[in-house]
Parts: sequence; structure tokens; C-alpha cells
Amino acid sequence: MSGKIAIVGVGLVGGGWAIAFARAGYRVALFDAVAGGALKSYGVVLEQLAQLSDAGLLTEAPETVGARISIAPDLASALDGVVYVQESVLERVDVKRSVFKLMEPHLPADALVGSSSSGIPASLYTDHVDFRDRCLVAHPVNPPYLVPVVELVPAPWTSREAVVATRALMTEIGQAPIELTCEIEGFVLNRLQAVLLMEAWRLVEAGIATVEDVDLTISQGLGLRWAFMGPFETIDLNAPGGVADYARRLGGLYCDIAASTDEHRVWGPEVIELVEIQRREVLAAADLDARRGWRDRRLMALAVHKRQMEQIDALEAAEAGRA
Amino acid sequence: MSGKIAIVGVGLVGGGWAIAFARAGYRVALFDAVAGGALKSYGVVLEQLAQLSDAGLLTEAPETVGARISIAPDLASALDGVVYVQESVLERVDVKRSVFKLMEPHLPADALVGSSSSGIPASLYTDHVDFRDRCLVAHPVNPPYLVPVVELVPAPWTSREAVVATRALMTEIGQAPIELTCEIEGFVLNRLQAVLLMEAWRLVEAGIATVEDVDLTISQGLGLRWAFMGPFETIDLNAPGGVADYARRLGGLYCDIAASTDEHRVWGPEVIELVEIQRREVLAAADLDARRGWRDRRLMALAVHKRQMEQIDALEAAEAGRA
Repeated sequence: MSGKIAIVGVGLVGGGWAIAFARAGYRVALFDAVAGGALKSYGVVLEQLAQLSDAGLLTEAPETVGARISIAPDLASALDGVVYVQESVLERVDVKRSVFKLMEPHLPADALVGSSSSGIPASLYTDHVDFRDRCLVAHPVNPPYLVPVVELVPAPWTSREAVVATRALMTEIGQAPIELTCEIEGFVLNRLQAVLLMEAWRLVEAGIATVEDVDLTISQGLGLRWAFMGPFETIDLNAPGGVADYARRLGGLYCDIAASTDEHRVWGPEVIELVEIQRREVLAAADLDARRGWRDRRLMALAVHKRQMEQIDALEAAEAGRA
Repeated sequence: MSGKIAIVGVGLVGGGWAIAFARAGYRVALFDAVAGGALKSYGVVLEQLAQLSDAGLLTEAPETVGARISIAPDLASALDGVVYVQESVLERVDVKRSVFKLMEPHLPADALVGSSSSGIPASLYTDHVDFRDRCLVAHPVNPPYLVPVVELVPAPWTSREAVVATRALMTEIGQAPIELTCEIEGFVLNRLQAVLLMEAWRLVEAGIATVEDVDLTISQGLGLRWAFMGPFETIDLNAPGGVADYARRLGGLYCDIAASTDEHRVWGPEVIELVEIQRREVLAAADLDARRGWRDRRLMALAVHKRQMEQIDALEAAEAGRA
């Protein structure tokens, strides 16, 4: 729980990472190539820390956590003595290639570099650096201090040790790391989101259900279980004999349904307009920002709720162990 | 909030419906063709009412709610004076056809009949009855008193009035009805679940991620937002200009990802064994039942949590209205 982390590229994502690491006890150095960029983000981070504290999601004073975060004057000072770098610059191959090259002379031996890239595999911007075996993607969901999952995606040359150590670090700070064995478009999270979104849009485009009703199907239906169980655990508990029993009973049905959705087309202007009109009836464009604030409060409250539930689970497991 | 409902076919699903209606003030008559079937279910219902009461999810004593539920000696008495029937018999076309025909002589004029069918469209078992314009699918998720979504799926001959009235009834009792304009395989909920499950299984079969890691991607990632927002609201808040902005930026990417998943195959014995082995490492078969109890407690706690959050939202909206 001690050691130094550098965040290279400090926008919304980098700032969120700073909170996740500092909350766990790490010193965090912020570096952004844009003058004033890290400073601006630092202000947002302090605000977010106050909100987390109000929600009961910090075990220390927000000032204590905030004091672990500092702004580095240059990349060399940012990287000095770090054990891990979370690269969070713009999602562009040329920008990432350049930043990785710039890190090369300053990165301590053995320091690992995780990229926040949500889609570009590390092989496209780490092939040219001498520490490429210590690079991988560590893709968070925003904000990482409220949504724990982190996708670890190694490039072909990433060492096994780098993946194992990054997984251990993420677990230590309270994230939920998951691991891919190879680079695949969209990684896991966006692949799952993509297939669901494509079907959701098709149902609206075909006039079968409204945007609001599709949303209710998830938020008042499937999403309730998925907030604390994954899709495999859900079906494992949904058949008397568990997941294999479920698969044998319903595999054919799901395959038929999936096969009936085969047409994949980029969302065109008509369906975009249709969805936009239906969303704006529910939420005016002027209210988008306020609703984002609502979303973050709900995510915080859900994090508190889940933490309480997990404490109850842990207590019950301990009691069962004693009995 | 007064009136009489009949549940025809009283297993797990029918019993759950009885709670949903009785909790809202309706008198509920249970009828099951199997001798003793309704009685057995009634015992389970009373247990579930006690649990709901303990969780703070009943506004009245469980005995008060339970007293609204009674067992009908025959189908004629069950249907006598009802405003709505929730058919919850076995998921088989021949069984449903026969039950709908048996209801014909006893169903009051104007009474509506919703079927709990999770997949068989109402057109396959209501074409032969004289009240077919008052029949539709009203597909719940188990248990309906904790998971509010209900999919309303009209047959081609279902009257618009029947759909509107069923939607109003479901809203009145606190469910979250959604409406399909036509019969489609899997309705909305299982279509969305199907595409996500098919991709989840493919990722495991290809060795890209483990069952546990796919589950974490949802339960510690996408599922957190989906517990209180649908997929459309999620993306609407995830781009500065809302959903249209998001669609123009990322539509191509999602289409590419979906297009790269085209192969749909029924899950074969090898992948079923792989998933089964991985799940049994996390949860022994002997612990499935205990884990189902855990799931239901978590769903209850989440229902309490969401109700509290919605009360806060309502208070804030009222304050904003006064300001």
C-alpha cells in the first residue's frame, strides 16, 4: 500500500485513476503534456474526493487522500521512482506511440505501464520501446473509483509477470481486474455491450419496442441481477442442475434468437433521429448534465449498498466457518 | 386497488404473481389443475411474504396480504367475478390451448387474460377462444414481486384496449410493464439476454477470458449502471451531445464488433463442460440452493435500496418543483 504511481495524461480518466490509487495509500504523480491540464484535473479530483467522503466511501479524510496526489513538473519527475504508470492520454495511436517513446529514458527498471485505452490494443503503440514486455492495456470504466472492473489485455510481447503483477496491484487497490489472453476488438466489456446495443437499436428501428421500454427491460429486469452476479452465475442459478443443465435446455433457443439478429448495419441517420427524439422526450438536452450528476450519485449509493451487502456476506461466511 | 384476480396454474411463477397482486390490495384466487398444487404454493407464498416483511418490502402485515389470497376449489369459482387472469401453467402449447378453452365458459365479459409465457406467443394458444381479443402475453421475471419488468406482447387479434388496460393494471400494482408491438421470438428481454450470452460463451470457448472474469465484467462493470439505467440512457449520458452524438462517434465501432461475432452455434458438449467445470470451481453443486437463497436476499436488499433512492429522487423533484 505504499509506493509511487504516475498518471500520464490527466483528463477525466486519469483523474479517476488518481483517486483509485491514492485512496488505497499510493502516492500519485500527475503529468499532463498540456500546460495547466493536470492542475485543472486536480481541482476536479478534490471535489470528487469530497463527494466520496460525504457518501461514506472513504475511510480517511478527503484531505489525507488528496495530499497523496501531486502534480509533476515534467515527465521525468513524474516517472521517478514509480512502480506503475497508468497511461491515460488521448485515444489515438500516434499520440500513444509518442508518449510511450517519451517515457523510455525515464521509466525505472521493473516499472509496469498500463494503458487506459478502451479499444486500441497495446501492440499498436508499444512495439518500438525497450520496455514493451512491461506494457499492457488496463482499461477502466468511468469513474474507476466507483466502477471496479479493469480489463487487462496483454500485447503478444507482454510478459506473464507483468500481467500477474498488474492484476495483483489492481486487486490490492480494490478494483476488479479481469484478464484477456489476447488482443481482441472491443476487449470483453465493449463486446458484451456492443451485441446488446446492436439488438436494442434493431428492436427500436423495427418499431417493436420504444427506447424507454428497452431501457426498462434492463433497469427493471436483467440489470437487477447483473448488478451483483454475472450472466454465467445468473443462468447457473436458474436451472435445477446448474449451468450445464441450463445450457442443454435453453442453448438451442438462445442460438435461434441470436441467429435471427444477424444483420449488422451501422446506425443510420433515421434510426439515430428516432432514438434521439425518444430520449429527448424523456430527458431534455438541457438536463443531460444534471442527469449525469444523478447517475454518479446513484453509482455512489450503489457502491455503498454493495459494500454493505459484501460485509454481511463476509460476516455470514465467517460465522459459518466457526459453526 | 380492489377487485379480484385469478392465478391459473400455481407453481413458482403463479405464486410470485399472487404476492405482486395481493401486495397491491387485490383479492387473488389460486387455481391449479393438479390436486394440492395450489395449497403447496400457498405455503411457499406465506414464507415469501414473511421474508418480504422482514426486508421492509411490505407496507402491511404479511398476514393481511396473505389473507387476500385464497385457493379456489375449481376453475369456475376461481374465475367468478375476476377483472384479470394471470395464466401461469406449463410452458407447452397443448397445455395452454386446453386451459384457455376451459376458461371460455367461466370468464366474465371484459376480464383480461395475461399469459406468463416466457417464449410462446399468445397467437399459438388463443386463436380458438371467443375472448381472444382480450388475451396477451404478460411475461414476468422471477420473482415478479422483486423484479418489476413485465413484457406485454399482443397477438395479432389482441385489442388495443386490452393492452392499455393490462399496462395500467401492471403499473398500478408497481410492476414495470413494457410493450411490444408484435410477437417476436424471445420477446425483448430474452433477445437482449441471448445476444449477450452467446458472446459470453464464445469468449470462454475461444479461451479469451474465463467464466469468472466475464461475470466480473458485468457484475463489477456494465451491470452497475444497468441496475438503474437502461443501455440507451447509459449511452445518452456518455457523450457530450447525448445519444445521437454517441451513435455517430461509436456506431461504426459497435457494428464492427457485432459483425465479428457472426458465427452462431448451439453450445456443444465441450464448451458446456468447460463452463460447468469453471462454475463448479467457484460454486460447488451442493451449494447451488444456498446461493439461490443468497441471490433472493440480494435482490430484496437491492429492491429496498432502489426504493430508497427513488424516494430521494421524488423528494428532490418535489423540492425543485417548489423552488
